[in-house]
Amino acid sequence: MIKSSRFDNATPVIAQCQFVAYFLVFNFINSLSHPLDPLSPNEINKTRHIIQQSYLGAIPNITYHFVDVEEPNKNNVLKWLSSTTKEKPIIIPRQAKVVVRAKGETHELVVDLTKGSIVSDEIFKGHGYPPFTFNELFKASKLPLKYSKFKESITKRGLNLSEISCVPFTIGWYGEEITRRALKVSCFYRGESVNIWARPIEGIILLVDVDSMKIVLYNDRYKVPMPKAEGTNFQSRTKNRLNIFATCNVSNVGFTIKDHEVKWGNWEFHVGFNARAGMIISTASIYDDEKQKFRSVMYRGHVSETFVPYMDPTLEWYFRTFMDVGEFGFGRAADSLQPKVDCPGNAVFMDGFMAGPNGEVQQVPRAICIFERYSGNVAWRHMEINNPTKLIRDGEVDISLVVRMIATVGNYDYVLDWEFLKSGSIKVGVALTGVLEMKAVSYTHKSQIKERVFGTLVAKNTIANYHDHLITYYLDIDIDDNANSFINAKLQKVKASGFGTPRKSYWTVIKEPAKREAEARIRLGSEPADLLIVNPNKMTKLGNEVGYRLISGQPISSLLSDDDYPEKRASYTKYQVWVTAYNRSERWAGGFYGDRSRGDDGLAVWSRKNREIENKDIVVWHTIGLHHVPYQEDFPVMPSVHGGFELRPANFFESNPLI
Amino acid sequence: MIKSSRFDNATPVIAQCQFVAYFLVFNFINSLSHPLDPLSPNEINKTRHIIQQSYLGAIPNITYHFVDVEEPNKNNVLKWLSSTTKEKPIIIPRQAKVVVRAKGETHELVVDLTKGSIVSDEIFKGHGYPPFTFNELFKASKLPLKYSKFKESITKRGLNLSEISCVPFTIGWYGEEITRRALKVSCFYRGESVNIWARPIEGIILLVDVDSMKIVLYNDRYKVPMPKAEGTNFQSRTKNRLNIFATCNVSNVGFTIKDHEVKWGNWEFHVGFNARAGMIISTASIYDDEKQKFRSVMYRGHVSETFVPYMDPTLEWYFRTFMDVGEFGFGRAADSLQPKVDCPGNAVFMDGFMAGPNGEVQQVPRAICIFERYSGNVAWRHMEINNPTKLIRDGEVDISLVVRMIATVGNYDYVLDWEFLKSGSIKVGVALTGVLEMKAVSYTHKSQIKERVFGTLVAKNTIANYHDHLITYYLDIDIDDNANSFINAKLQKVKASGFGTPRKSYWTVIKEPAKREAEARIRLGSEPADLLIVNPNKMTKLGNEVGYRLISGQPISSLLSDDDYPEKRASYTKYQVWVTAYNRSERWAGGFYGDRSRGDDGLAVWSRKNREIENKDIVVWHTIGLHHVPYQEDFPVMPSVHGGFELRPANFFESNPLI
Repeated sequence: MIKSSRFDNATPVIAQCQFVAYFLVFNFINSLSHPLDPLSPNEINKTRHIIQQSYLGAIPNITYHFVDVEEPNKNNVLKWLSSTTKEKPIIIPRQAKVVVRAKGETHELVVDLTKGSIVSDEIFKGHGYPPFTFNELFKASKLPLKYSKFKESITKRGLNLSEISCVPFTIGWYGEEITRRALKVSCFYRGESVNIWARPIEGIILLVDVDSMKIVLYNDRYKVPMPKAEGTNFQSRTKNRLNIFATCNVSNVGFTIKDHEVKWGNWEFHVGFNARAGMIISTASIYDDEKQKFRSVMYRGHVSETFVPYMDPTLEWYFRTFMDVGEFGFGRAADSLQPKVDCPGNAVFMDGFMAGPNGEVQQVPRAICIFERYSGNVAWRHMEINNPTKLIRDGEVDISLVVRMIATVGNYDYVLDWEFLKSGSIKVGVALTGVLEMKAVSYTHKSQIKERVFGTLVAKNTIANYHDHLITYYLDIDIDDNANSFINAKLQKVKASGFGTPRKSYWTVIKEPAKREAEARIRLGSEPADLLIVNPNKMTKLGNEVGYRLISGQPISSLLSDDDYPEKRASYTKYQVWVTAYNRSERWAGGFYGDRSRGDDGLAVWSRKNREIENKDIVVWHTIGLHHVPYQEDFPVMPSVHGGFELRPANFFESNPLI
Repeated sequence: MIKSSRFDNATPVIAQCQFVAYFLVFNFINSLSHPLDPLSPNEINKTRHIIQQSYLGAIPNITYHFVDVEEPNKNNVLKWLSSTTKEKPIIIPRQAKVVVRAKGETHELVVDLTKGSIVSDEIFKGHGYPPFTFNELFKASKLPLKYSKFKESITKRGLNLSEISCVPFTIGWYGEEITRRALKVSCFYRGESVNIWARPIEGIILLVDVDSMKIVLYNDRYKVPMPKAEGTNFQSRTKNRLNIFATCNVSNVGFTIKDHEVKWGNWEFHVGFNARAGMIISTASIYDDEKQKFRSVMYRGHVSETFVPYMDPTLEWYFRTFMDVGEFGFGRAADSLQPKVDCPGNAVFMDGFMAGPNGEVQQVPRAICIFERYSGNVAWRHMEINNPTKLIRDGEVDISLVVRMIATVGNYDYVLDWEFLKSGSIKVGVALTGVLEMKAVSYTHKSQIKERVFGTLVAKNTIANYHDHLITYYLDIDIDDNANSFINAKLQKVKASGFGTPRKSYWTVIKEPAKREAEARIRLGSEPADLLIVNPNKMTKLGNEVGYRLISGQPISSLLSDDDYPEKRASYTKYQVWVTAYNRSERWAGGFYGDRSRGDDGLAVWSRKNREIENKDIVVWHTIGLHHVPYQEDFPVMPSVHGGFELRPANFFESNPLI
């Protein structure tokens, strides 16, 4: 689901400890700045300026759909990182990658900010389109209100036009040979609730051609009663409001942020932001007390794509099979975090910057927060009774550092966490909350339902439709260096014989590194295994390959049939884990052009190259999520559901780094 | 793994806010006290007194192996609960269930504390034995030190006898027709480390006949170098010590404890304790704002059994297939919680009481802690952009109540949490920490290993053996009342046709209640499903059956072959979920007599009765845990690994109770 506009700046900013994380760039690039820093406001402005000065400036109404730092050469970044701070000899060109639409065509530009010129300009001829701009979405959402057939439909239903909010939806791809940039628009009746989703005006669907910004198809198929939406305001009760002062005071510890670089405990990493992925964690390394140096763990980690197909095949719903990151962008959906609600009182905030429809700077105040967490857990503990003279009891509380953003993609809110632990673990968490996508129906009681419905009756005249949330992470793990291997270490049952004991069975671990990409497509849950990313060139003193382990949550995969169109577009969701050879251009699991994509770009396609991945620079892709069967408690706003995974050191250190 | 003795009272008590939760009972039973209250110190003393006054008192050296409140009739307890506080008309007899060993026989007694007499006395003739007493374990651990052959072995190895700690292990059952109560003892070399587990004296095993307390078999099979155990002290670093003052201050909220009854937020429940399960949660109910009453969720929940088989089939290791709850007891293993380490600064503590080897009272100071948790998460949140004049952004922080105990079972520490959320969820958490069980080997580097080993080289001369942790919970769920059904609601792929749209597939939910026990043995992960416990007699206003959902973690099941002896004893671990008809006597998944059990009692046996479970009083059993492949980071103490599951309302409320 996507939203129609962006009014963030209309709300008062009540940030505390706000940290504005940008720096100034004019005509030179400060070689001391991290090469993965996102484009600063000045760089975004400069990018726009360079493009407007080019032949593109003469074309009316060009629109900016993607403006991000052009991914620098990884080897250069690694060289930059490994050189000392005072002497950074590698000059990494500061470039922006830009996608603009001009005269109905998609231009892929590389703008060199140092040279002040466009260094590459290609017209994309493949399938799919870049994300919609806010303006496009906003305009599409307003079209029905001036459309006579729609006004007739509203009159026929006895509704008041001024109480209607319309929302544009991406429409996917269903086998059409020729596609256009289009949106389908559904409308909702606000009445006295701010929760627009509670009152869908069911039975009507409009198709909008976006390039001409016109309604090209209108269908008023049926009418059902409007849900009453009683008690659907999602404002918290006053008495609970008091709780927002709850805060964790973590003393004697702390963290520092310099530009985008965060140092905390034994960790050092970079926090970036762009319109597509939202928060991006880069060059995360951990200090090894024994080796007395920082050691690389992850070059880059972020949400790569999401897939949210609804399970209603009827005319007004079948196309709702969203790929939010590619079609819209988690960064564009980043909501300003509420201090003391979305993040605890000890949080520090970071703003996000991106380009708007005309290439101008858009600021997301408090897009990211960073805070130390103490949940009351122990990092380790033990009591030892077997020493004759003394009982030994010790342990340590678990304090971690959380980096958070929240993407509000229309009705849903995704709370996205990266949590760093002193034990060396990185925990990635997703909490899902917000409002369900609902369908108006004639039923007020389950006993009335005789035909097939596609969800749960959560309120009178209201079905919350079944759907999935599949969230795919891009994890460019670099254990100690970027030549790594992936091992699906299987636990194999063994018949016990020859040991002279009555034991009949046990299990052991079979470790074979995946040689090629095809061997590293993993469907979790079918057999027990430890998933390892190791550096086969680095051993512990004991001779174990240094590595990290991916501990997944409950496995999920798409249940759609392989020949179904949404499944072709998101065929990477058939496996929960993939490993590919690093390629600078391969970052978006559903393909770079997500809107109306056909599955001819993306993870499943790249993996078919079946490249060598043993002792190579590799990328791990991991999909988490849930099949969502709604229940009444999810109405009118759902309590958070938590999921996630852990990257945990596995023979990376010589011993527990906490001791 | 089990420990040899109990020195808890030897450590200084530094409890803050300590809450001593016992009340006085003399010759009458206060009918206002909760009938599920554990035996108080006075009741334990009285129980012992009554037994000593009987014919059993004349028998020398009788030993107490189990003393707990005799499970009262559930219907009477429910009647007691539903009557108003001032008039509790149902007199529930206050009785103790006791297992004593006398003249080599196992007596099962029921002692009526009101009448002051033994009302039932039966000799158990089946297979298996009650848990060992501390004295037995302690004595067995000391036997080797005075055993000449052992002393010779130690001299031969050039070790110092005064630096040796021995640990008794339960021995399981391997097909023997006639069994005796026996322990195998392994010894460890302390040297300069308090971490005894780091230096196993490998190759030696002793068998102790417990009733005669004599070594009946001695085997010194081989000799390997002693691991150096450098840096294996598990004491935390001074600089980290400062962190223990970290504390969460949760203001404007609070909870009350009266005897064993806890009230917090919308929750009300009872916290009990016994030697076998440790912490027990009973009669948990949640206040329904709409119905203006407390509604029952769970009658009883606790750890029922654990199964920890090691994957080494050799002579000194094959039998290490522990069932800690039945063989030893999680309550007996309950460690005194360290304020500001094991529980945060805002925690309130509860002591535990149980009977010692002679029936005398044993106190576990700070056996349980209760605290409010704020982890920095949101209970719910949403930002709504689709209202034309205002952006709405709201949410609420997630504050929960945690009830915790820690069982230190020899080398391992299990942090066991029950967490109550205002959303109606109950989250059960287990964190696993402590020390690995290790095997001394001749290798100092992995490259030297040519033969088969059964674990990971975690230090020089030290293999940490592969093993499983399977923890089975007893969950007597009572949704609104005790006539409930269990539904394995399967998500089924459907071919889309007849809708006039190009969509080809979707999924729907098939809800069929399990009619008999055989239909409710669930192997998770093979197909997606929601696991529901519903009350088919109670509907929401919309006509949905009221219910709760069991959300499991990553599924685990035992990999041992079905014909292997440990697997026969723990055959309930082949499925992660079972549902049985409530039976007062069926609480311990591995059978009541865990030591040397043969699998002829317990969950798998009861389920074979295949009783009706639709619209009946039912019990859900859920096994969680992990296959543990050790890594070097787990040495010398392992960083916590977290697991658990959630019980989440599913059409229990009319809508989200937080709004």
